[in-house]
Amino acid sequence: MVAHSVLITGCNRGLGLEMVKQLTRGNNTPELVIATCRKPKEAQKLNEVAASNKCVKVIQLDVGDESSYSGLVSHVGELVGAHGLNLLINNAGVSPKSTRINMVKWRQMTDTFAVNVVAPLMLTKALLPHLKAAAAQEEGNNLSVKRAAVINISSVLGSIERNDQGGLYPYRCSKVALNAVTKSLSVDLREHNILVASFHPGWVQTDMGGKNAPLRPTESISQLLTQLAQLSELHHGQFLQYDGEQLPW
Amino acid sequence: MVAHSVLITGCNRGLGLEMVKQLTRGNNTPELVIATCRKPKEAQKLNEVAASNKCVKVIQLDVGDESSYSGLVSHVGELVGAHGLNLLINNAGVSPKSTRINMVKWRQMTDTFAVNVVAPLMLTKALLPHLKAAAAQEEGNNLSVKRAAVINISSVLGSIERNDQGGLYPYRCSKVALNAVTKSLSVDLREHNILVASFHPGWVQTDMGGKNAPLRPTESISQLLTQLAQLSELHHGQFLQYDGEQLPW
Repeated sequence: MVAHSVLITGCNRGLGLEMVKQLTRGNNTPELVIATCRKPKEAQKLNEVAASNKCVKVIQLDVGDESSYSGLVSHVGELVGAHGLNLLINNAGVSPKSTRINMVKWRQMTDTFAVNVVAPLMLTKALLPHLKAAAAQEEGNNLSVKRAAVINISSVLGSIERNDQGGLYPYRCSKVALNAVTKSLSVDLREHNILVASFHPGWVQTDMGGKNAPLRPTESISQLLTQLAQLSELHHGQFLQYDGEQLPW
Repeated sequence: MVAHSVLITGCNRGLGLEMVKQLTRGNNTPELVIATCRKPKEAQKLNEVAASNKCVKVIQLDVGDESSYSGLVSHVGELVGAHGLNLLINNAGVSPKSTRINMVKWRQMTDTFAVNVVAPLMLTKALLPHLKAAAAQEEGNNLSVKRAAVINISSVLGSIERNDQGGLYPYRCSKVALNAVTKSLSVDLREHNILVASFHPGWVQTDMGGKNAPLRPTESISQLLTQLAQLSELHHGQFLQYDGEQLPW
């Protein structure tokens, strides 16, 4: 299995939902998949997955609302117990449609930054006691997703090196900054034996990616989960694609 | 001279003040140096430089207050006329003291992002008509600071590649995102023949850099201004150090 316990944000649709689906299939499912979303009552597909898989627990969370984090941390503590939380996947995110310099607005920049960067950082900070507890279950300094890890779902649009199309200021700035969070976390959490990496899931046919995307959610997530299971010290603090290719900052 | 007209933000102290000082020395001074700061009445040193140099115009600007941009744009228009604005140096910035993951706060992240990233982007957008007017004074597709340019004062702490110390989430995320702005602007403004680059001024003995910094403001800015004058197509969209060295993203 990928890990004993996993928490994924933004699971009502798209890649988050697909991760929950695939984690609950096969013989090596996690013991616990905590799937958060903003509006559980409206998350019909997620609720269907949870209804037929006891390991899936749906919890309400608006990642942009820091005041709700302490409640979440308590709830997660009750679910994971002394074993701690092995894997946090910061998947929830937004993507405003603005393109060129003449279109960008102040609020788009700050709103996107809050959800895509500040929330993953502060949620990681809040859940750190549970991640540390999981890491402490093993001896030695090895790193793995099975032990303890933070995976930030980034985007190749957050690669400054690969940006030859311009525009997309709110989204690009947020994913670049999220990669910076990944790198700093990788340094700060190394002593606690918690692995940290950014992942680009590919350009996927979701509400966010649109119909013209070349990749289906099933393909992207299948490969991404395979890669996650193989992560080690070698990948700590890196920016990786769903198929394992390392991306430039 | 570096350019006919230059606008620099954050000129009350530190590197901004030093830029104004050095630009007004020698025989090849710009015709106009617009030096903005939040509180001109308290900017004694800047006012002294302005009092002895007619080319220096001090204008009040809080870069974090977008509602004041239209007034600034009009004021700059009156000063530069049909010649336009050649060089915008986005220098104003803040640096909160937080270090490791256990110290970082939500508001530090968003406040730093607003001043260090959103403001330079939106100010560039607002001043674009004046920059385009300056670029249109020359024929051909060449790029230079003398023609039209946006220089973003970044930091090596915004290099993800060079980050082996971790922490500093608000500042690092802001400078990384500012570099992303630089790269997107370089694509979007190429057709208007406006040069865009990020500069790391070095670790300098300023209020922000502290006493232990190895570089004096005079040395940093002397070299940085020399580099600015030499910028061309080759440096468009890049992240450069005060001495001309290219830095990794």
